[in-house]
Amino acid sequence: MYRSHNCGELRASHTNTEITLAGWVQGVRDKGFMVYVDLRDRYGITQLYFDEEQTNKKVLETAQKLGREFVIQVKGKVQERASKNPNIPTGDIEVLVSDLTILNKAKLPPFTIEDKTDGGEDIRMKYRYLDIRRNPVKNSLIFRHKVTQEVRNYLSNASFIEVETPYLIKSTPEGARDFVVPSRMNEGQFYALPQSPQTFKQLLMVGGMDKYFQIVKCFRDEDLRADRQPEFTQIDCEMAFIEQEDIINTFEGLTRHLLKEINGVEVDKFPRMLYDDAMRLYGNDKPDIRFGMQFGELNQVAQHKDFGVFNNAELVVGIAVPGGNSYTRKEIDKLISWVKRPQVGALGMVYCRYNDDGSFKSSVDKFYDQDDLAKWAEVTGAKPGDLICVLSGDKNKVRAQLSALRMELSERLGLRKPNEFAPLWVIDFPLLEWDEDTERYHAMHHPFTSPKPGQIELLKTDPGAVKANAYDLVLNGNEIGGGSIRIHDKETQALMFDYLGFTEEEAKAQFGFLMDAFQYGAPPHGGLAFGLDRLVAILGGQETIRDYIAFPKNNAGRDVMIDAPAPIDDEQLTELSLKLNLKS
Amino acid sequence: MYRSHNCGELRASHTNTEITLAGWVQGVRDKGFMVYVDLRDRYGITQLYFDEEQTNKKVLETAQKLGREFVIQVKGKVQERASKNPNIPTGDIEVLVSDLTILNKAKLPPFTIEDKTDGGEDIRMKYRYLDIRRNPVKNSLIFRHKVTQEVRNYLSNASFIEVETPYLIKSTPEGARDFVVPSRMNEGQFYALPQSPQTFKQLLMVGGMDKYFQIVKCFRDEDLRADRQPEFTQIDCEMAFIEQEDIINTFEGLTRHLLKEINGVEVDKFPRMLYDDAMRLYGNDKPDIRFGMQFGELNQVAQHKDFGVFNNAELVVGIAVPGGNSYTRKEIDKLISWVKRPQVGALGMVYCRYNDDGSFKSSVDKFYDQDDLAKWAEVTGAKPGDLICVLSGDKNKVRAQLSALRMELSERLGLRKPNEFAPLWVIDFPLLEWDEDTERYHAMHHPFTSPKPGQIELLKTDPGAVKANAYDLVLNGNEIGGGSIRIHDKETQALMFDYLGFTEEEAKAQFGFLMDAFQYGAPPHGGLAFGLDRLVAILGGQETIRDYIAFPKNNAGRDVMIDAPAPIDDEQLTELSLKLNLKS
Repeated sequence: MYRSHNCGELRASHTNTEITLAGWVQGVRDKGFMVYVDLRDRYGITQLYFDEEQTNKKVLETAQKLGREFVIQVKGKVQERASKNPNIPTGDIEVLVSDLTILNKAKLPPFTIEDKTDGGEDIRMKYRYLDIRRNPVKNSLIFRHKVTQEVRNYLSNASFIEVETPYLIKSTPEGARDFVVPSRMNEGQFYALPQSPQTFKQLLMVGGMDKYFQIVKCFRDEDLRADRQPEFTQIDCEMAFIEQEDIINTFEGLTRHLLKEINGVEVDKFPRMLYDDAMRLYGNDKPDIRFGMQFGELNQVAQHKDFGVFNNAELVVGIAVPGGNSYTRKEIDKLISWVKRPQVGALGMVYCRYNDDGSFKSSVDKFYDQDDLAKWAEVTGAKPGDLICVLSGDKNKVRAQLSALRMELSERLGLRKPNEFAPLWVIDFPLLEWDEDTERYHAMHHPFTSPKPGQIELLKTDPGAVKANAYDLVLNGNEIGGGSIRIHDKETQALMFDYLGFTEEEAKAQFGFLMDAFQYGAPPHGGLAFGLDRLVAILGGQETIRDYIAFPKNNAGRDVMIDAPAPIDDEQLTELSLKLNLKS
Repeated sequence: MYRSHNCGELRASHTNTEITLAGWVQGVRDKGFMVYVDLRDRYGITQLYFDEEQTNKKVLETAQKLGREFVIQVKGKVQERASKNPNIPTGDIEVLVSDLTILNKAKLPPFTIEDKTDGGEDIRMKYRYLDIRRNPVKNSLIFRHKVTQEVRNYLSNASFIEVETPYLIKSTPEGARDFVVPSRMNEGQFYALPQSPQTFKQLLMVGGMDKYFQIVKCFRDEDLRADRQPEFTQIDCEMAFIEQEDIINTFEGLTRHLLKEINGVEVDKFPRMLYDDAMRLYGNDKPDIRFGMQFGELNQVAQHKDFGVFNNAELVVGIAVPGGNSYTRKEIDKLISWVKRPQVGALGMVYCRYNDDGSFKSSVDKFYDQDDLAKWAEVTGAKPGDLICVLSGDKNKVRAQLSALRMELSERLGLRKPNEFAPLWVIDFPLLEWDEDTERYHAMHHPFTSPKPGQIELLKTDPGAVKANAYDLVLNGNEIGGGSIRIHDKETQALMFDYLGFTEEEAKAQFGFLMDAFQYGAPPHGGLAFGLDRLVAILGGQETIRDYIAFPKNNAGRDVMIDAPAPIDDEQLTELSLKLNLKS
């Protein structure tokens, strides 16, 4: 037995108990005649004590030579500390060591194993096993475990069944690019890794499973961003014999449960917002509603004056920045530069100071008098002391630009409070979205999403106006989940594939099994998938999802620790080329 | 709202309640003036009742036209049945239907949706979503869910943390063949899908995670057998600062918990058997100990007579078949043919009848007298009325042959009782096993398994004799789990790789990250992995693991329902060939 207790367990009540501990040397304080060692494991830190009088000479000498991160085992007796440390749970005691065994030596770690480390991200990724020893990473992984346990227990208690769906499936042309996997048993043929278990969970509904969930890895072979991994984890859920209202109630219940159990926060019924309103009021389909700064559309009050820029714009829209009138001219110029950065892309910004005395001073005083500007204030909800920022141009672009500005300013103003949780349902998403590149409509959610009742006819006349039974769950400005009520009859599904540009043969080849299934008694069904990585990061209050992934990949999709992906050897390459039926 | 209750919920106490149900039509009994419909969902079956007097004419007519597996919704009132059905929980009531809506029609299913179906395996695999509606499959999937929930809760309560390890990793040369996954972001390079999270769980131990588990998919691109899938699920566990005894106690506790909670069976402390004893007494490293029929080695008593076959054999070994003396000569001849089948491979079989009067009659009476045969009986533990079956030849082969015979006969004799559970630890596995093909030793478990203390020196002189800190958990003749105490220092690991024929460069290229990690303070650690598919099948008492997999692949590694794997189109092929750096 390597230990009788762990390093976070001993208290004053253990005084005089003979114990055995094992762990890592956090640090050694050698005062010559006495030595203190902090011994660390997952559960905490316990102080070890050695001195000339009470400790065997050889043991003391060994203790003096211990290096950071050595793995040791000690036997000894618990005693109360002379000077207690109220900051750690074991701070009342120390262990007077009688025996010390070095279980494994350690090279000096390339960065300090402390909460605030001196290691940059690259080196910590390369030595991820050392990074995991640090409390912030270790606790993030434990936090993730707790969240998944809570999710599983909640859903299991609500009669959901976790069913594993296959990882080696068939490639489908919709959505992001599939990772493909050549099959040795079936030469020249390929599996694909799932981007989600979408069709399988629908088949489980056809199969009568009624309530399904799965916490499952999904894959997409796409260029990555800082918060996207080529493999990611979903809490994937589906229910039969339900309407949108049932889905919303069920997963609002789950989310409220998590906020309560994990964060100790009680949240009222989640508000709901139409997609169109989210875009109009926040320029964004995942608005952060922890604070106001809603958009005010100024077309009516700011157009038809002599200001050509506004007159020619599809949309003129502003926000009131609380207390923004205190900005100096230089600060405002910086803000204008900020919105003109390529990442934001505005051509310029009009601003209007709302002075404490009720007067206005704008960058376009030439075109607008005090009464005009008072209307701007009314529409944007500005108060004396605020600054009104106005952007104009193409509707979709200008909304995105002003949304970026809103997020930036709210961050600077400290309005995005990490311990405040403001969930929101965004509902009635459009069924389709226009794709500039291919010059056609794509399914906004996926091709299995049903249109709102009675709207399918609109597909022919005004496709962009068709709303879907689709909804997103938003938390603090992040989409943490999304889903829809599915199409469950073959005719509508065929119509949808046809509309999305599939020939009948293509639809049959790709999704024949699903449309076949719909002919054998498919129940009405729908679902929701949470992005676990992001959900955990938001609940946990960390900046990036990588902190919650044990072995993340970098922005190039590489695991630098194990150096993957890697070239494979010639023999395998030859075998693969045979599989691919390529002449080499 | 599609339903107020489910189809397994209503009882006599609901009489006169207005309810709404939805589900599938199991069957319609149309008696003209009255109609009975069995409505089915995941939770049960409820009888619907319609008659001329009480039901609206249109509703009655719709009911008469319902086909099997139609999806319907009904509103009505609960009433007590005239003739109750005590075989189902809802058997006391029926629903007098007032409204009936057909939610979806259904084509006639290609096989009956009954517990005993008329569908063969192929057709049921092709229409798996219909097969899942049948109780045996549906209940198997729910059973699997319950097992995984119990496992997760048990391990979580024991301070284990479930950590997700990556699916896109680096290919390693040991073990079965990896599935490879080309990377688009890193041209010419490949990920591999993990055969197990082995190295990652070891890195988590180096990272101080202390107790890790994960229920995780693993992959091997190998030819399949009926009970092997290219993707399979493991309960993967690892612990630090432990010895073999700690691992055994922990997972014996888990297994005992499952047997109790899932099967309602209380099991005593699991027996342990040395690998060498398992091979000697059962010819098998996963003996079924629900019954006896232990091997008796007969070299001492049967050699050095005039029977050349035995004299030239490395091993002469027999078993006593209880009551086997009742076999006719013809039956025994059939048994001899059975052991001579290529799948078993024996050259012949010697037998000896133990008559009720205490006399013996053997197939080799020419060489052995009654005293000789009495010794056979003594060694094999035969009693009057038994039949002694004796095989001889090369030790390893003959043990495997006699083990096959033992299993076959015990099955015929009904000794493998499905509701009896006999777990067993098999310990002290050899570290290495000889591979005839490559003419060298391979790691029996994997190259991270540690040798028994003090035995590493034996590697040079008698490698086959070196025992490992490796153990299997066996249940009713099946290996349900296996693991080992790992090597945790770089020197031993390097020695092991060297011994297994890796050059220093190869070892560094493949496992450098692990050996590096060992230099930064690796704790002693070890673990165990359960094969979830098999564990669930054994606990659930079904024959094949496929019954417990929602969407299994067939023996050719194909999912016939979705037709995967499949060829991919030319554009993708071209892209892949570019990635492979192959000239096409």
